[in-house]
Amino acid sequence: MLGSNVTTVNVDTLPGLNTLGVSIVRIDFAPYGGLNPPHIHPRGTEVLVVLEGTLLVGFVSSNQDNNRLFTKVLNKGDVFVFPIGMIHFQLNIGKTPAVAFAGLSGQNPGVITIANATFGSDPPINPDVLTKAFMLDKNVVQYLQSKF
Amino acid sequence: MLGSNVTTVNVDTLPGLNTLGVSIVRIDFAPYGGLNPPHIHPRGTEVLVVLEGTLLVGFVSSNQDNNRLFTKVLNKGDVFVFPIGMIHFQLNIGKTPAVAFAGLSGQNPGVITIANATFGSDPPINPDVLTKAFMLDKNVVQYLQSKF
Amino acid sequence: MLGSNVTTVNVDTLPGLNTLGVSIVRIDFAPYGGLNPPHIHPRGTEVLVVLEGTLLVGFVSSNQDNNRLFTKVLNKGDVFVFPIGMIHFQLNIGKTPAVAFAGLSGQNPGVITIANATFGSDPPINPDVLTKAFMLDKNVVQYLQSKF
Amino acid sequence: MLGSNVTTVNVDTLPGLNTLGVSIVRIDFAPYGGLNPPHIHPRGTEVLVVLEGTLLVGFVSSNQDNNRLFTKVLNKGDVFVFPIGMIHFQLNIGKTPAVAFAGLSGQNPGVITIANATFGSDPPINPDVLTKAFMLDKNVVQYLQSKF
Amino acid sequence: MLGSNVTTVNVDTLPGLNTLGVSIVRIDFAPYGGLNPPHIHPRGTEVLVVLEGTLLVGFVSSNQDNNRLFTKVLNKGDVFVFPIGMIHFQLNIGKTPAVAFAGLSGQNPGVITIANATFGSDPPINPDVLTKAFMLDKNVVQYLQSKF
Amino acid sequence: MLGSNVTTVNVDTLPGLNTLGVSIVRIDFAPYGGLNPPHIHPRGTEVLVVLEGTLLVGFVSSNQDNNRLFTKVLNKGDVFVFPIGMIHFQLNIGKTPAVAFAGLSGQNPGVITIANATFGSDPPINPDVLTKAFMLDKNVVQYLQSKF
Repeated sequence: MLGSNVTTVNVDTLPGLNTLGVSIVRIDFAPYGGLNPPHIHPRGTEVLVVLEGTLLVGFVSSNQDNNRLFTKVLNKGDVFVFPIGMIHFQLNIGKTPAVAFAGLSGQNPGVITIANATFGSDPPINPDVLTKAFMLDKNVVQYLQSKF
Repeated sequence: MLGSNVTTVNVDTLPGLNTLGVSIVRIDFAPYGGLNPPHIHPRGTEVLVVLEGTLLVGFVSSNQDNNRLFTKVLNKGDVFVFPIGMIHFQLNIGKTPAVAFAGLSGQNPGVITIANATFGSDPPINPDVLTKAFMLDKNVVQYLQSKF
Repeated sequence: MLGSNVTTVNVDTLPGLNTLGVSIVRIDFAPYGGLNPPHIHPRGTEVLVVLEGTLLVGFVSSNQDNNRLFTKVLNKGDVFVFPIGMIHFQLNIGKTPAVAFAGLSGQNPGVITIANATFGSDPPINPDVLTKAFMLDKNVVQYLQSKF
Repeated sequence: MLGSNVTTVNVDTLPGLNTLGVSIVRIDFAPYGGLNPPHIHPRGTEVLVVLEGTLLVGFVSSNQDNNRLFTKVLNKGDVFVFPIGMIHFQLNIGKTPAVAFAGLSGQNPGVITIANATFGSDPPINPDVLTKAFMLDKNVVQYLQSKF
Repeated sequence: MLGSNVTTVNVDTLPGLNTLGVSIVRIDFAPYGGLNPPHIHPRGTEVLVVLEGTLLVGFVSSNQDNNRLFTKVLNKGDVFVFPIGMIHFQLNIGKTPAVAFAGLSGQNPGVITIANATFGSDPPINPDVLTKAFMLDKNVVQYLQSKF
Repeated sequence: MLGSNVTTVNVDTLPGLNTLGVSIVRIDFAPYGGLNPPHIHPRGTEVLVVLEGTLLVGFVSSNQDNNRLFTKVLNKGDVFVFPIGMIHFQLNIGKTPAVAFAGLSGQNPGVITIANATFGSDPPINPDVLTKAFMLDKNVVQYLQSKF
């Protein structure tokens, strides 16, 4: 639905990575807007390189740094770094499929997709928390919670 | 507006913490719903203890663990752990002010408030990204981006 | 006998703390002199917060820093840091019971009570060592070794 | 007075050790009882090898391990390990001078001599703390505090 | 001469990588045998992905593992891991230029080219050492030392 | 054949070293040229002390530091440091046997002997790689590969 597919090689799939401090992902993006949506890696910094296509990528810095967005358009061979724990995304803005590889500085870096963890947790987060935090109408929150 | 206030003691405010691997926050909550909204600490696990009042607290696990919500009502003296990089929150569900202290396993753990980093980054994230990621109408996204 | 009781939550009692780098203790002090005697944590820095009562706390720096004593009277809500491996103590100097919580930067920080490890080891340390090190009469050393 | 002399090579004396994670000490012991008194290294495990002479060495494990004493007589070429943060000592039990070298797993491991830090801190620890902790008469504590 | 060119992005060239635990290299290989010769990274594990061309890559395990050679032919999109401190190489076995990107688990992983460090150090290593270690005639060693 | 013998105490031979971050080796050198040939430790910095005899020791720095050779003649009681991952060696230049002890900053530091890993891997490295990397005639490479 989002138009991206992530294939992961970490210590769970490749035990030989144990203690080596790295893991790898391959990300395939559909043309015209394939999206790897805003997410974080709680236990790893990511270095991404584009193999094919054109991606708009970005990450947002922490509150102390005023949530600045660092963003860039990447073509084949371009590289970008997403620091550990920062919210980031990649969007295919080209007319062709895109492919990227990324190395992560952790054998089990983890992934937390922001929208899913926030609105799709099991069980759901108390709607009062989300209504207030996101300044959304309670109906909107409950609608979102029903979709994720 | 959210009804909480966080006072931080980290290596920036107390240079003596350098290399000690810990920092501290005090969180004051207004009665009837004071909220420390969903956020993460990119560089620290948090241990929280309630000094006064009653808090509903929770964190959401990562995608690999199916975004499970771990939640609990804490009274004076109760303790809870928020693992590094996991989305978590605290809500005052009592009729009195609440006070909590937390120790974090990092001298500069950082804070990223999810709603602010997502909808209030500077400059704003491309609305196409948020529309698709949150399954929200573009108008709603742009409205949110105008408020944070 | 010393008038304090320590309840520990570490990776042995709560396996979920594995790899999270923190553990927690609750310390209850009897009124009028309840003491958590001089001890060290070989694998963790400690952050302590007082929930109830009044504590005199302190730690001694290393030889290179001339064994300086850093000490403070803490009331409810006050916080103090004991760096990894430094000898420290807490004494209830109030007329009421005291309660403190502490977070430690390690999932299994360990505790070594100085008097017990020195004079109460099993088997006992050669009395010549302790006599010379503590400039104590051999009788005093042997008396102490019989009590711990 | 104790009959030992420690020469240290750490990151303060040899800046090239920065980030290498090791430091070195040479310890010279007087014959007939030269003592390196009970002490800890808050930031390093120690591996000791005897170059000359005969040493009685030992360390005491933590409270969780019941303060067991691990001890051994070492001759030339013998090796012993003192785990990070554990109280340990070395005593020359031979009739000749002894020499040992030790490597420590830290560029700035630190030293805390137990008797000095406990009874010789500056300013002194509240005597009530030491009286109670060591089950010593207050006069003895104050006498000790006057000597260290 | 070897037919490869390495472009490095580490903490020296990009200060923003400080504390992030990663760095990046791009390696361009000439067709028909462009070689990144046997080398090690003393402070980083490497994850390599091929962007263009066909590489023969390999690393040799440590003595304890009997110096086993792990080798593979990589085409576009293929990935390989070189563990920290292991001798490894990449050879272009195709008729076209090849391009690879690699992420390393360290902000300053370092490079030691085996032949250059062994035979081209400044000043040269005592020829007796190399003659014996490599079972080479002294003339060959001195010839090699004159070339690197 | 090389005239040295290494006895290792690491976490495989002494499980108690687990998590302590150190291991130990004893190295015995034959007189008149006993050699511990060029090798690296991929997971540990080494501190060496000479117990008996006279050693010529050295290590070569990384490419970024221009492969400089740091070398010294060590007599009884002298100490030297070999940084993690750097190629180093020890040669007995005396007329008597020599003995050295070394502590390593890792419980399982590993050893990679350069000549053996390069010319004696199993299976052998493609001779084209070694011919080009070492500027050696292919016959010499194949001769070396037959001997290691």
